[in-house]
Amino acid sequence: MEFELRILGSGSATPVPGRHHTAQVLSVGNMHYLLDCGEGTQRRLMEHKIGPMRLSVIFISHLHGDHFFGLFGLLGTMQLQSRTEPLRLFGPAGLEEVLTTQFRHSGTQLSFDLEFVVVDPTVHQLVYEDKLLTVHSLPMRHRIACCGYLLREQPRRRSLLRDRLPASLSPAQLQQLSQGEDLLDETTGEVVLRYAEVTGPPKRARSYAFCSDTVYLPGLVELVRGVDVLYHEATFLDELRERAAVTFHATARQAGQLAREAGVGQLLIGHFSSRYRDLEPHLREARSEFAPTLLALEGTVVNVPNQPTAE
Amino acid sequence: MEFELRILGSGSATPVPGRHHTAQVLSVGNMHYLLDCGEGTQRRLMEHKIGPMRLSVIFISHLHGDHFFGLFGLLGTMQLQSRTEPLRLFGPAGLEEVLTTQFRHSGTQLSFDLEFVVVDPTVHQLVYEDKLLTVHSLPMRHRIACCGYLLREQPRRRSLLRDRLPASLSPAQLQQLSQGEDLLDETTGEVVLRYAEVTGPPKRARSYAFCSDTVYLPGLVELVRGVDVLYHEATFLDELRERAAVTFHATARQAGQLAREAGVGQLLIGHFSSRYRDLEPHLREARSEFAPTLLALEGTVVNVPNQPTAE
Repeated sequence: MEFELRILGSGSATPVPGRHHTAQVLSVGNMHYLLDCGEGTQRRLMEHKIGPMRLSVIFISHLHGDHFFGLFGLLGTMQLQSRTEPLRLFGPAGLEEVLTTQFRHSGTQLSFDLEFVVVDPTVHQLVYEDKLLTVHSLPMRHRIACCGYLLREQPRRRSLLRDRLPASLSPAQLQQLSQGEDLLDETTGEVVLRYAEVTGPPKRARSYAFCSDTVYLPGLVELVRGVDVLYHEATFLDELRERAAVTFHATARQAGQLAREAGVGQLLIGHFSSRYRDLEPHLREARSEFAPTLLALEGTVVNVPNQPTAE
Repeated sequence: MEFELRILGSGSATPVPGRHHTAQVLSVGNMHYLLDCGEGTQRRLMEHKIGPMRLSVIFISHLHGDHFFGLFGLLGTMQLQSRTEPLRLFGPAGLEEVLTTQFRHSGTQLSFDLEFVVVDPTVHQLVYEDKLLTVHSLPMRHRIACCGYLLREQPRRRSLLRDRLPASLSPAQLQQLSQGEDLLDETTGEVVLRYAEVTGPPKRARSYAFCSDTVYLPGLVELVRGVDVLYHEATFLDELRERAAVTFHATARQAGQLAREAGVGQLLIGHFSSRYRDLEPHLREARSEFAPTLLALEGTVVNVPNQPTAE
């Protein structure tokens, strides 16, 4: 099963040729989770061959336009394509009113159930769960209420080792084993095949932390400790850290520092100010703190491989 | 002085690669008037090197998303660029509430004066005037309230003919003439130079009619009679005229018919349904009714030349 992150936009608020507003898709198996949705996101999804009908959950960090103005058009297209599957939309208070005001004046009656879930951006808590993932809120500190998200795979089962399985097993027995049960003799009730003997260690539960629009928050270190991939905004270079603090943004160095202290696997930096054309200095600066850093540029795909846990 | 129309989007509601949502700019001298503003319009403007600060008036036809979802981002960028010049925004009732709800939840305090003007889409009347243009509403008939716009140059003055002007004229005298006054002898009050003798016929007042999202409306013929350029939506081919009527759209043939009956100079058709890849059939069909037809494709620029009126 894949655990794959796609970056659809690397820019901050002021649009720049070639850079788009914040939007990312995390794909886990056949589920696609959209994180933020700047203007034009539906076109970026089209370029990545991810039809809007394939999204089942959307997480919005905050209500600055460069993080959600694409929602109007994306929901409109779902409607035009006669979506019937429900959609869950997580975001700060106010999102529902902004969208429903627009629906009312455009005479829109949605063909699908749109469930708004208000996220409290002041606390770290479980906000969503399905068979594949849990999602926790990550309190950011920005000019308006803003929430990051930590997406973590559900604990995985031990993997069946095909070469240790007797050839004679029935489909029912195989299913019992794959659900973690030992096989018993029907008459005596004695164990005839132990689950633990024919399985290897489970795959690791992979994780991704999306930290959008925030000042540098040392308190975040504990919340994102050890995640496989951390996205952290790096609007400015460190020479402008005063300006970063005033506008509630972070610098490339601060993002690197946080990644190092949290011991994450990989850092992605993005949300670059329009003042920067060349982003190499951002990369160098973050890498001076934390080497495994990449720029979260349009089209970047980060795949976290499946790996067994140590036994 | 130029009178130049730029097409920024040719598509209808469902997005298609290469086609964008409705937006057009009419440039008259150094004034730029934006007509509709689908998602991504600010990027199209950027491609055409028209900075958002150079727009002074925006006209919105109706509140379906493909005609105004770009406003959120465009106004946001004006704000980021610290616009101070007032902006007038014409559109149907509801636009103000949609935008101000969003401003409220994003904590936006506009740096410029945004004047909302509600247009009544049921009547044909003067809605705007400046030194260069008058703008009249054109009642459309669509699923929701929808308004076209007729932009017409103000009557032009007669042109000074340099080769008939005496070399000895003072700047003050030149200005008097250019304001349409005869020159008088200061002592006797007698006419020494007649305005009519040193001027040629005025340039024609040019005109553009923007007819967005409507069924075929024969009543429109009188309102757009003789305009230099008519844009009319042609969502469908005539074989789908039933569907056009049901969805309150028009066909390429109907657009051609209207242009012929109104005796316009040039027809532009657009707002093509996503079902059509090849648009040659649209062009052929409209031209079978009215030969001077063009497809209103992205990047199309139509320049109406300056011409003297007949004397």
